[in-house]
Amino acid sequence: MSEVKTVKYPAERLRDFSQKTFEFFDVPKEDAKLASEVLSMSDIRGIDSHGVARLHTYFDMLENKRINPKPNIKIIRESLSTATIDGDNGLGLVVGPKANEIAMNKASEVGTGWVSVSNTNHYGIAGYYVIRALEKDLIGWSMTNTTKLVAPLWGAERMLGTNPIAIAFPAKEEPPIIIDLATCAAAYGKIEIANRKSDKIPEGWAIDSEGNQNINPEKMINGGALLPLGSDRERGGHKGYGLAIMVDFLCAVLSGANWGPFTPPFALRQEIPEKSVGKGIGHFFGAMRVDAFIDLDEFKMQTDDYIRTMRSTKPAQGTNGPIIPGDPEREAEEIRSKEGIPLVEPVIEELNDISRKTGIPFD
Amino acid sequence: MSEVKTVKYPAERLRDFSQKTFEFFDVPKEDAKLASEVLSMSDIRGIDSHGVARLHTYFDMLENKRINPKPNIKIIRESLSTATIDGDNGLGLVVGPKANEIAMNKASEVGTGWVSVSNTNHYGIAGYYVIRALEKDLIGWSMTNTTKLVAPLWGAERMLGTNPIAIAFPAKEEPPIIIDLATCAAAYGKIEIANRKSDKIPEGWAIDSEGNQNINPEKMINGGALLPLGSDRERGGHKGYGLAIMVDFLCAVLSGANWGPFTPPFALRQEIPEKSVGKGIGHFFGAMRVDAFIDLDEFKMQTDDYIRTMRSTKPAQGTNGPIIPGDPEREAEEIRSKEGIPLVEPVIEELNDISRKTGIPFD
Repeated sequence: MSEVKTVKYPAERLRDFSQKTFEFFDVPKEDAKLASEVLSMSDIRGIDSHGVARLHTYFDMLENKRINPKPNIKIIRESLSTATIDGDNGLGLVVGPKANEIAMNKASEVGTGWVSVSNTNHYGIAGYYVIRALEKDLIGWSMTNTTKLVAPLWGAERMLGTNPIAIAFPAKEEPPIIIDLATCAAAYGKIEIANRKSDKIPEGWAIDSEGNQNINPEKMINGGALLPLGSDRERGGHKGYGLAIMVDFLCAVLSGANWGPFTPPFALRQEIPEKSVGKGIGHFFGAMRVDAFIDLDEFKMQTDDYIRTMRSTKPAQGTNGPIIPGDPEREAEEIRSKEGIPLVEPVIEELNDISRKTGIPFD
Repeated sequence: MSEVKTVKYPAERLRDFSQKTFEFFDVPKEDAKLASEVLSMSDIRGIDSHGVARLHTYFDMLENKRINPKPNIKIIRESLSTATIDGDNGLGLVVGPKANEIAMNKASEVGTGWVSVSNTNHYGIAGYYVIRALEKDLIGWSMTNTTKLVAPLWGAERMLGTNPIAIAFPAKEEPPIIIDLATCAAAYGKIEIANRKSDKIPEGWAIDSEGNQNINPEKMINGGALLPLGSDRERGGHKGYGLAIMVDFLCAVLSGANWGPFTPPFALRQEIPEKSVGKGIGHFFGAMRVDAFIDLDEFKMQTDDYIRTMRSTKPAQGTNGPIIPGDPEREAEEIRSKEGIPLVEPVIEELNDISRKTGIPFD
């Protein structure tokens, strides 16, 4: 990546620009602030694909009235430990944090809280939500379904989203364990990068439109699909496929949202599915009070021991040994909170475009 | 597998033999019945590795007083939606079903129930527990940690178990979706089979004792390790590693059981870890009332639609198209419930050995 030219911007400045952009479309100030915080955490933690690089898509969706800037977010069913929420087609960046909050409140009351959300939109990084839970010493869960990109094992077309799962566990002296993974073998962004560079992609990432494994990124992009985690039957592709279904059910079938190939896209250029089986996309949040199971301090000390034990694993030849989930993002955060967020030229151009159209100063 | 000679036995006869074997060691009759049912479901559903093929190991563990035949299973902490259970070193086949029952009862009271279990032993197939939940129209979750076999990504030694995750969703006219997957790329049993046949194994399954990918099964068996689901960094091995950690935390760190490399083995010949960080191994069970989120009938109709939609995916070249998680096991069940359970000679010999030592008639 060193050959890509970037310009660094302070995180606060990007967050402020995002907030003002949301406010421009009459998103209430507090909601705009929340949404910009979710985007900003993605930038700070080094997940460039989900931060301000997405702001122009949110802009497009709001401008075309595909997203409701002032949703009336409602609990449509609940029990002591659960809630089902209708996000009223609001920003996922607003609906998500509010639904997550409800899960955390339920946990404080009855030990755990579980919330399934329909009628919502792209919610940023799954990791944001579990980090919020960590701040309250809760074990947080976060999942979302997404528009189709992934083939079921033995299928030759896109039927499932990249459907991520995040879960985090608090530690005492060590940093927490933050697991955040999409249930496909590799990210679509990596295929796009390879395509721009005319590179091949590794085996196991994608199929062409006939369902054959293929190392040509262009064939995935034009009518092919990503493979589920595990890639093929021999290496456990049926497992990644099963996990993607699990996420789809918890987020969408359970909430009344669209699932599988009917999940609406998050970009104007992508086609809207002909059939609808629910409302919007779906999320799922969970929160578990550690002390509902075990002493919090005992748990945190064990987490420290766990982390140190994994780090002391004999390293595989040619590596520095295992890392802990969350390490790369924390390292990015340390650098970026000091040095700023590196943006590539096309993203800067998109932000300037927003600035021109809204009058909000940027560059 | 057609060259392997097998003899078929009616499932009831094997179940009866298992029950009597447990009773021989003073396992109470109801518990022995329960344990034999768990083993039997594995045989009927075609998961040969976890049925009566394991009975001799249970026999050894009971004979050597490594398992408590009459455990005093206790709830050591609880909240409205959670419980932590000490299995008193009982059979996992007894502790597991009872803990799962508690999760289901909590769900009927407050919408969901979540139970973490310490001081327990091998619990059979993860799928058994979620099938019990399906019978009550619940979404069931089941996980267990297991003795070390899997390397963390970039590690050169065994630090994690195969740590399976099962979850199931009820349907209306279609059979239910039953997801049951170990978080490693391939099962250890497949490596053993390849080794017996002097076959190579596929890339992505295992490493040797230096952490290099290797296709020689013998090198995995002697000091090597299985790879996590995803295999290598490029294809998402860090994701399988993250999922294995998740299971370890929910089952063991949360309950006070042993985790990671300290998880005790389930066979006399395997060494006991030098360090103990808790009690026995750990399980985790969850149960969610569907109607706490959405109308049960609506959910089941959507599940039917989901299954039919996935089945109608355009097939990849050279395949019959995607199947639904649970299909292979249900097909095995249809055949085996009529034709009996095919046992290979070494398993028959083990059962005869139990018969000789206990006086319980077998062959």
